[in-house]
Amino acid sequence: MTQPKSKNITWHGAEVTQEEREQLRGQRGCVVWFTGLSASGKSTIARRAEQMLLQQGTGVYVLDGDNIRQGLNANLGFSPEDRNENIRRIGHVAQLFADSTTICLTAFISPYRADRDMARALLPEGRFIEVYVAPPQSVCEERDPKGLYKKARAGIIPEFTGVSAPYEEPLAAELVIDTSLGTIDECAQQVVDYLKAREFVSL
Amino acid sequence: MTQPKSKNITWHGAEVTQEEREQLRGQRGCVVWFTGLSASGKSTIARRAEQMLLQQGTGVYVLDGDNIRQGLNANLGFSPEDRNENIRRIGHVAQLFADSTTICLTAFISPYRADRDMARALLPEGRFIEVYVAPPQSVCEERDPKGLYKKARAGIIPEFTGVSAPYEEPLAAELVIDTSLGTIDECAQQVVDYLKAREFVSL
Repeated sequence: MTQPKSKNITWHGAEVTQEEREQLRGQRGCVVWFTGLSASGKSTIARRAEQMLLQQGTGVYVLDGDNIRQGLNANLGFSPEDRNENIRRIGHVAQLFADSTTICLTAFISPYRADRDMARALLPEGRFIEVYVAPPQSVCEERDPKGLYKKARAGIIPEFTGVSAPYEEPLAAELVIDTSLGTIDECAQQVVDYLKAREFVSL
Repeated sequence: MTQPKSKNITWHGAEVTQEEREQLRGQRGCVVWFTGLSASGKSTIARRAEQMLLQQGTGVYVLDGDNIRQGLNANLGFSPEDRNENIRRIGHVAQLFADSTTICLTAFISPYRADRDMARALLPEGRFIEVYVAPPQSVCEERDPKGLYKKARAGIIPEFTGVSAPYEEPLAAELVIDTSLGTIDECAQQVVDYLKAREFVSL
């Protein structure tokens, strides 16, 4: 190791193909995009599904407000441009996780179809799984864990999705889950079952 | 499943602690931050180390210009502000990968100490491994796979690191690798050995 060895060889490594990567890891990367109103249960189901998958040793990760808004997107506000950039960045980060063969679960209201379709377009066909978390809005408003609906109804919070700002329902979500009709475990299991049936994770 | 079951229970899931996550996955997440001049071999070593780790079934991923500049950071140019934002975003994405227990290798020139220290500060103590890829500059200029040094020397490319823009050497990198003194495999093995010795991946 005292003489230069590599000076005259091509200094360029081999690539790992996506297929090889997935075979070596024993799972296929994808994005499971949870969308729905505030307090619909997106994060809760995503985190429970994550836990179930982790317990099988699966590489899985949840992106939600907790880890995105404080860090990567801390320099974004709530203007229309910033909301759009927020989802754009999340879409790209989710795509990177999927590319790494991770099962990436994202939990954001993401009220606009165009934004969700933009995120979908970053993934190969079949790798973007839109999950519409859709209890009746009255259930969300009853849960209201942070009192946001109450404030929105009182006009204290402006442009609140479902109250004073639109939510565009998915037209063809891969899964629709009414979290008022099942336990957290039952709802999360639907997601895990979907991933197993499509062989993203092993049975 | 026809009657609302969960309306009156607290709709909130359990958290997975980082320790549990790492035990379930059998590896500890970290960021291996490669820095060095253009053509020093950062991406090449990172990709070979990735391959070696993948072959052991490790969850590992490389962030470099190929997957960052076309996607997440496609809306950034090369102004000082944009270069800073470029590294800031990469630092946060790398942190998310480490948080997911992935071994995240990043390969960017990242010429400024302040930028690298910012990325380091996002990780818990000991989880940021700075790898200074440091062959003599003459070797980089000889390799010059894209003819960039030639253009920089001719003044065609302005502000080129090492020619017309500064490179601030790491003062306390965890690893220094002179890629002119070893094969790609030997250099990548140094990285893998470091990760095994610190028990980020199993032996």
